[in-house]
Parts: sequence; C-alpha cells; structure tokens
Amino acid sequence: MSYIVDVLLFDDFETLDVFGPVEILGKLPDIFKLNFISIDGEVIESSQRVRIESNLYKEEKDVERILIVPGGNGTRENVSDESFISFIRELHNRAKYTLSICTGSALLAKAGILDNKRATTNKKAYKWVTEQGEKVLWVEEARWVQDGKLYTSSGVSAGMDMTLGFIEDILGKAKALETSQRIEYIWNEDSTYDPFYKLYE
Amino acid sequence: MSYIVDVLLFDDFETLDVFGPVEILGKLPDIFKLNFISIDGEVIESSQRVRIESNLYKEEKDVERILIVPGGNGTRENVSDESFISFIRELHNRAKYTLSICTGSALLAKAGILDNKRATTNKKAYKWVTEQGEKVLWVEEARWVQDGKLYTSSGVSAGMDMTLGFIEDILGKAKALETSQRIEYIWNEDSTYDPFYKLYE
Repeated sequence: MSYIVDVLLFDDFETLDVFGPVEILGKLPDIFKLNFISIDGEVIESSQRVRIESNLYKEEKDVERILIVPGGNGTRENVSDESFISFIRELHNRAKYTLSICTGSALLAKAGILDNKRATTNKKAYKWVTEQGEKVLWVEEARWVQDGKLYTSSGVSAGMDMTLGFIEDILGKAKALETSQRIEYIWNEDSTYDPFYKLYE
Repeated sequence: MSYIVDVLLFDDFETLDVFGPVEILGKLPDIFKLNFISIDGEVIESSQRVRIESNLYKEEKDVERILIVPGGNGTRENVSDESFISFIRELHNRAKYTLSICTGSALLAKAGILDNKRATTNKKAYKWVTEQGEKVLWVEEARWVQDGKLYTSSGVSAGMDMTLGFIEDILGKAKALETSQRIEYIWNEDSTYDPFYKLYE
C-alpha cells in the first residue's frame, strides 16, 4: 500500500504546519510519496520567508491520495478566493484522507467539507476559523480530531501529533512510535489533551 | 537588538532540523532576520524532497549573526568535503552564536569548533558523530547542551526545544514560553531530560 501525499502550498502558509507532518511522513517513503503542489505550480513563500518549489496537481490512475492542508496568514485571503476553495474541494473529493493543520481547517470549512463533521483548529484564531463554517461540529478542547476520512489539528505543532495519530490509525501504534523515536520526538499521543485552549477563553 | 540568522542548507539536510528552529525564530521577526544560505546559493533539496531557494553568504557591517547548522544524511558526505568544512568554520567565527541540530554537530566537530567543548547529537547516529571529533566533551544524555556561544541538540525534534532554550537564555523565559504557546508547542524545557539515549545503548 502506498499513497501520493499532496501537500498544498500557498503564499504565507505557516512553515511548521507543513514541515512537521512532512518530516514524519517522509520517514516512511515506501508508503508516503510526498508531492508539493500549489494552484499554479510556482515557487511559494511561507510566513517565515522560506521559498519552496511546487508542482501542479496531476491526476494519476490507480493510486490513492492523501491531501495535506496547512494554515497560516495566507488563509485569511484564501477563504475569499472562490477558485482556490473549489480547488481544495476537488482535491478533497479525490483524496482517501484529508488532513488539515492549524487554520487550514478554515479553508476546509469554507469549502463545506466539514459540514456536520467534528473538527478542531488553532486556539488563538478559534473565533475567526469557526465563523468560516457554521454547520461544522467544532471541538474546542482537542489536540486533533478525526471524523471519517478527515483529520483536523490544533495550532501548528499539533499537526505533528496528529500525523503520528494518523499513522497509528492506518499502520498501527508500533509504526507511529517507531517513527516518533526516529526523529526523537516526544509524541503527545492523547488527541483529547489540549493545554492551549484555555489560554484564550 | 537584532540578528541575521544564517540557516545553512545543503543537499539531503533533514527537513525538521531546519524548519523547527525556523518556525520558532520566525515568530520574532524584529529580532531574528532569517537568511537561508548555501555554499553555492542554489536550490537545495532536503532528505524529504523539499526544494528550497537559498542565497550566498554576504557580509554586512554592524550586524550580529547567528549560525544554524542542521543535520541529515547529507552530513555523511559533507564531513569529508574540506571546502564545506572551512566554510562552516568561517561562518562560525563570524557568528555570535552557533546552533547545530541532530548530526549537524558532526560538521562542527570535524571543523574543530567543538574541541574541548561540551556537546551532544542524535542518539541513533551517536557513534558515527562522536568519531568526527575525539577532543569533544560529548554528553550522551541531554536534550541539548550549551557551552559558551555553542548550542548543540539531540536528534531532529530536539532542535525545537533547544531553540526555545536559546530564546530563554538571551531574551528570558517569558518570551520563550510565549513563543511556544503561539505555535501550540508543548516545550520540553529541561535540557537534561533525554528519553531517547537509552534506546541505543
């Protein structure tokens, strides 16, 4: 079993939202084929001024795909960009799993993907994100939330814990633990433990 | 007070070694000006196939600099590349602080920068790294080690904890905690707590 992992980049994405999950999935290259994409296939610049090459999305036969949607300041404009939101909807429909990190869930919410689904997001930006999807069953206290094929995480670093939780779900706990040990990451493996939501109550 | 932070990229660097610290320092853009450099200023590809634009190193007057040296598979070749090792020695001499992550300390060791200094590194690659510097006072059990202007961390993710520890040292604990909260990172703030070194004894 292997997957193409489409990592969606856009200007002003939050650097670690992408490269935390990428580091983890990249440790299992036989299973996860990383593919950095953007809507126009150009060089993309993150909020931390990292400039990264990206590809256009390309359909392939007989392959399962995973979609990764980061957050960051770029989401503030992108929620109002109808062609961008349609692009996400299309990518999500073709994906076996969709994972968003931080305010990436605002994009999924705006696309209607999270309607009647349980989901979470960044805690500091909680009010703004949750306004993007009134039919979403938002979970305030969670490191990450899984509902069907959808995984959504809290802010930035929570994406790493979620990605390991995702690996646990599809490949088993031993593989998740082994992967966390290879990068000497102290995995916060309880998806309900969220020390940050209280900071902004 | 502000610093140019020279983040040294080379092919096959470990993605999170760079982008963990970059995420954290990038949250304080008035203090830390991130500058991605490589020896030839070309596009660099990480071990996880991320392709990143880099600049040449450029001297500037009246500015203090910080050097970040990641690890990764690329270090295995680079320790034998004399011009690369000289380049690191020169960057280090001009820097007020030098921080290495994971096997990045093999490069510093090879350059003689760590001689008679306390330092640590990745725990799985411990034997190989420590062979690169016989005069180094290697510390096996540590999340990170500080000695004078030098900071060295354990594997990959430990670089994030070290970077927050570095911020604590130069800007105070409140700033480090605030920064960790902004990225919802559960900071492992005890530099002596290292759950990974025992895995490879």
